[in-house]
Amino acid sequence: MKDLTIVKIGGNIIDNETELKKFLISFSKIKTAKILVHGGGKLATQLSTKIGIETKMVDGRRITDLETLKITTMVYAGLINKSIVAELNSNKTTAIGLCGADALLIPSEKRKKGKIDYGFVGDVISKKINVNFLKLILDNKITPVISPITSTTKGQLLNTNADTIASSLASALSKFYKVKFIYCFEKDGVLNENKVIKELNKKTYAQLKAQEVIKDGMIPKLDNAFDALKKGVSHVTIGNASELNKLMKYHAGTTITN
Amino acid sequence: MKDLTIVKIGGNIIDNETELKKFLISFSKIKTAKILVHGGGKLATQLSTKIGIETKMVDGRRITDLETLKITTMVYAGLINKSIVAELNSNKTTAIGLCGADALLIPSEKRKKGKIDYGFVGDVISKKINVNFLKLILDNKITPVISPITSTTKGQLLNTNADTIASSLASALSKFYKVKFIYCFEKDGVLNENKVIKELNKKTYAQLKAQEVIKDGMIPKLDNAFDALKKGVSHVTIGNASELNKLMKYHAGTTITN
Repeated sequence: MKDLTIVKIGGNIIDNETELKKFLISFSKIKTAKILVHGGGKLATQLSTKIGIETKMVDGRRITDLETLKITTMVYAGLINKSIVAELNSNKTTAIGLCGADALLIPSEKRKKGKIDYGFVGDVISKKINVNFLKLILDNKITPVISPITSTTKGQLLNTNADTIASSLASALSKFYKVKFIYCFEKDGVLNENKVIKELNKKTYAQLKAQEVIKDGMIPKLDNAFDALKKGVSHVTIGNASELNKLMKYHAGTTITN
Repeated sequence: MKDLTIVKIGGNIIDNETELKKFLISFSKIKTAKILVHGGGKLATQLSTKIGIETKMVDGRRITDLETLKITTMVYAGLINKSIVAELNSNKTTAIGLCGADALLIPSEKRKKGKIDYGFVGDVISKKINVNFLKLILDNKITPVISPITSTTKGQLLNTNADTIASSLASALSKFYKVKFIYCFEKDGVLNENKVIKELNKKTYAQLKAQEVIKDGMIPKLDNAFDALKKGVSHVTIGNASELNKLMKYHAGTTITN
């Protein structure tokens, strides 16, 4: 099987133009087939504030009303996505910008109303990921840059979690490629008393969760990471975007193991 | 040679959600390989007004400063492009949304400062259009939906005229496909005293321009149309977006001939 590297970057690096440029130079040096999945950053919230759309939060989670969906589609699938693509193409990586709606790459369904109505938020239908389209692109040496907007089969755009998109893609593509999944964020890895845990297995993860060493936003990220490993992804590493080259060589970050 | 239909739609239809949906149903019924190029509409100007960015005009032409470039990238390459894509995919047309920056599809250069500095406006480098990438997509029965944002080879995004993009693509692809170019706008065709001119050749065009029957914004559109025909496009028709099916059969609009 051919090698494929899937890298996820979060909002913090997207908000920092200089860091983002450096990161994209490192990313463009990855020699295997590759995919970049990006999150949102603060720009969508800033734009919403400027035009007077209130950011609605319930239990710490953002509610996506129709106006917010429009803003996120503009910012994520438009400005951020195409800026990254243009930068990569100038670094000799032939890149195209996609969202989950393109070629129904990542079909999703609107999250059902439970206690909370999240609005126009999508849950990925993992089984229906358009793997053939991605293979066509990758096998022609083109790098997809994917923004976290998806759509239903009926044409409704939906705001979707970028971590979930990245790990769903990694899992779906692991049937055809040997997938290395690099999960970049603002920290140096999974931390225990400010020290990076070099290797984290499921048992230790359970213990550190029980001790509340690992908590909050780290938990869904790690659940996604373990899930990807379970579903056939060869290698999952979590670490700092500024150390991408080291992460590729397993010289930095936290490596997830069974 | 295989048939290829390239359709350009302008701003007026994009601003009308009901008309746009109807148009996309008609477009999805075109049986040849196909490309849709779309313009902007009023949304970018409305958004600029809301966030307090002044629309600068010189001699009736919009100046694209950096903030305006960001807005147009968000609106054209993000919201409009992905909304059209999601709608087409729900109508059984497998579509992907691209701009000229994707895979350096349409390389451009920043317009040189003459009497007027247009700002971040791109002039298409027709010879460098990435025809191979488009062939890859088209030959796999995928429909590209293209927004009028391009980039330089150095990664600078630029706002670019959608008419020029459409006719440049039609010309470049006419070496590989028998191209039918359908140019949709809000009128029923090229008019002479409110009646549609069914066929317009270069000689009549020159006469009607001299008589000022054809004037203003119609002139660059027709210059683009005649240029496409000269460069090998098989067929050019100009007409109303609401009559796309009739335009495809030459039962409406103005057909351009040598």
